[in-house]
Amino acid sequence: MSRFFSKKYRDLVPYDTSGEHEAGNYIRLNTNESPFSPSPKVLERESKAAGTQNFYPDPDARELTAKVAELWGVRPEEVLLTCGSDEALSFIFMAFCDGGAAFPSITYSFYEVLAGLNNVPFETIPLSPDLSLPVERADWPSGRTLFLANPNSPTGLALPRAEVERIIQGSRDNIVVIDEAYVDFGAETCVPLIRKYDNLLVVQTFSKSRSLAGARLGLCLGQAELIRDLRTLKNSIAPYNLSGSALAAGLGALEDEKYTRDNCRTIMENRAFTAVGLRTLGFTVTNSLGNFLLARHPRFSGGELSQKLKASGILVRCYSTPEALAPYVRITIGTRKQMEALLEALKKIEEDERQ
Amino acid sequence: MSRFFSKKYRDLVPYDTSGEHEAGNYIRLNTNESPFSPSPKVLERESKAAGTQNFYPDPDARELTAKVAELWGVRPEEVLLTCGSDEALSFIFMAFCDGGAAFPSITYSFYEVLAGLNNVPFETIPLSPDLSLPVERADWPSGRTLFLANPNSPTGLALPRAEVERIIQGSRDNIVVIDEAYVDFGAETCVPLIRKYDNLLVVQTFSKSRSLAGARLGLCLGQAELIRDLRTLKNSIAPYNLSGSALAAGLGALEDEKYTRDNCRTIMENRAFTAVGLRTLGFTVTNSLGNFLLARHPRFSGGELSQKLKASGILVRCYSTPEALAPYVRITIGTRKQMEALLEALKKIEEDERQ
Repeated sequence: MSRFFSKKYRDLVPYDTSGEHEAGNYIRLNTNESPFSPSPKVLERESKAAGTQNFYPDPDARELTAKVAELWGVRPEEVLLTCGSDEALSFIFMAFCDGGAAFPSITYSFYEVLAGLNNVPFETIPLSPDLSLPVERADWPSGRTLFLANPNSPTGLALPRAEVERIIQGSRDNIVVIDEAYVDFGAETCVPLIRKYDNLLVVQTFSKSRSLAGARLGLCLGQAELIRDLRTLKNSIAPYNLSGSALAAGLGALEDEKYTRDNCRTIMENRAFTAVGLRTLGFTVTNSLGNFLLARHPRFSGGELSQKLKASGILVRCYSTPEALAPYVRITIGTRKQMEALLEALKKIEEDERQ
Repeated sequence: MSRFFSKKYRDLVPYDTSGEHEAGNYIRLNTNESPFSPSPKVLERESKAAGTQNFYPDPDARELTAKVAELWGVRPEEVLLTCGSDEALSFIFMAFCDGGAAFPSITYSFYEVLAGLNNVPFETIPLSPDLSLPVERADWPSGRTLFLANPNSPTGLALPRAEVERIIQGSRDNIVVIDEAYVDFGAETCVPLIRKYDNLLVVQTFSKSRSLAGARLGLCLGQAELIRDLRTLKNSIAPYNLSGSALAAGLGALEDEKYTRDNCRTIMENRAFTAVGLRTLGFTVTNSLGNFLLARHPRFSGGELSQKLKASGILVRCYSTPEALAPYVRITIGTRKQMEALLEALKKIEEDERQ
């Protein structure tokens, strides 16, 4: 640390990406990416836009914002496009957390990083032993901005919209943020609730279902007043937050919603196939509605199993914290062929152990 | 403003992009973009990368960082790549301004926005009547992080490296940030000073000389300890700050340094041509080393002149604040043809006035 570094950030613990980019020729089931290339329409749009990159992109991203509004059934002023959904979360932690934050004890670990960065005190909501959110809301922290990934990561467990609505109704003096990064793989979106509640923000991403993790494109939906506040921050930090290429990619993806729907259906089929295979092998598997499964081997810890799989050429995610996740691995759902290779490798690991 | 908006940001005045994206078929000389498309190598690299955008980009941008280090003559750990140079400036305002900031009274207006955002108190250094920095340092604010755009914007005036070095030596207890967004059009870079001074940061961008304003790619150079602090922030705010497309574009641009050099030479020639033309028409023109000229008409205010030029189909930048800039327009240097059209339009404006 340099002698100049702000005292505000000296204890900051950054997000750890170290395990995510292992070099080598692996089947990569560790970062919840889509196994499918982006739609050809994405490549077409980007290729068309590439020659004019000497010009600044539209800082208000009007064309893509209008398209999102149309497809999501909201008004353009209820949409903010961001550099990945991480940027949306970052703006929300800045804008709306004067009263502190709360999120489940097991969830997307970036929330805790952003709380630290913005000096936002936070409490966690302990999960039930089956990793679901406790139904008894009376025990939840109150008076805080609530961050709920729905489906949650890495459990994959999702609340139905009616359940989320009850949470929003019970927290009218604080904002409820529903992080729907994984919503397109079978969960219910809360976007239709936006018009009803001035304390709701919904965050989504183009990274997963639209095969655009590399393009850095996310969005935040909410009533116009909230979006205006976020836009004030956006225009004070990164007026040109989205590249021309990202805007083009987004437009291309939305021109091919059938491609997205088809890919999501395939992922859901492969998820069901993989869950059955894992349970047959003795795993405990959560009822994930994400593009991943959280699975526990009857004997190996998550760390042990991920090491064994890595030796077989397959990367999955394991967790050193929180402790409750130590028995688990999180497995991204890839192509059918990748999933077959995974189950094959796991069988082999079983057999080797029995010898 | 919503009832939830943080009290920290209620008085925030965002960066104003409203005048920058006028719709219509204009010759656009108002945002200091390059008139030249990016190098064909950029398009090649991006096109190759487009099909794998379903994967996350390398959060450490190792390949492009190594390439920058090689070409700039520094070590990889002395480089941080950012989403435009604006993101570098944003991280610096967060990281290194506990003692406040100082910058010239006329400079890139985003510094003041970032100071406001980060609650950093700032003082300005009044410029001399010819818009140059006052030589007498004793009157400069002390004990603050110094932000110097070199060349300065919108004056275009640049300090020689030896002069900047004296400033750095006189401010050893505070960081000096040299913003070299426009350095490639004839000014001296301060990158060679990095090894000597632990209180120097140099910020650059791919937006101008490398024709990549739309790609959002900037960089910050400094000693490893400073870069590590900035990286801590980066990994806490936007671990995946750069898209795969931006990384590919950067690599393509650096594979074609001749293209960049040739374009810079053309811009400098066109700048000289335009300055002569403007002076012939009675304008006062600063000795700009940027890809723009700051020019004052003998009678019309900047606002009046920019309105007249707009009516002739040409956009230039004028200023309502600070007051000292009211007589001026800032004219981006475009192609020779665009500059001829500009001078033609100005002649016509003169003639119309005389009738």
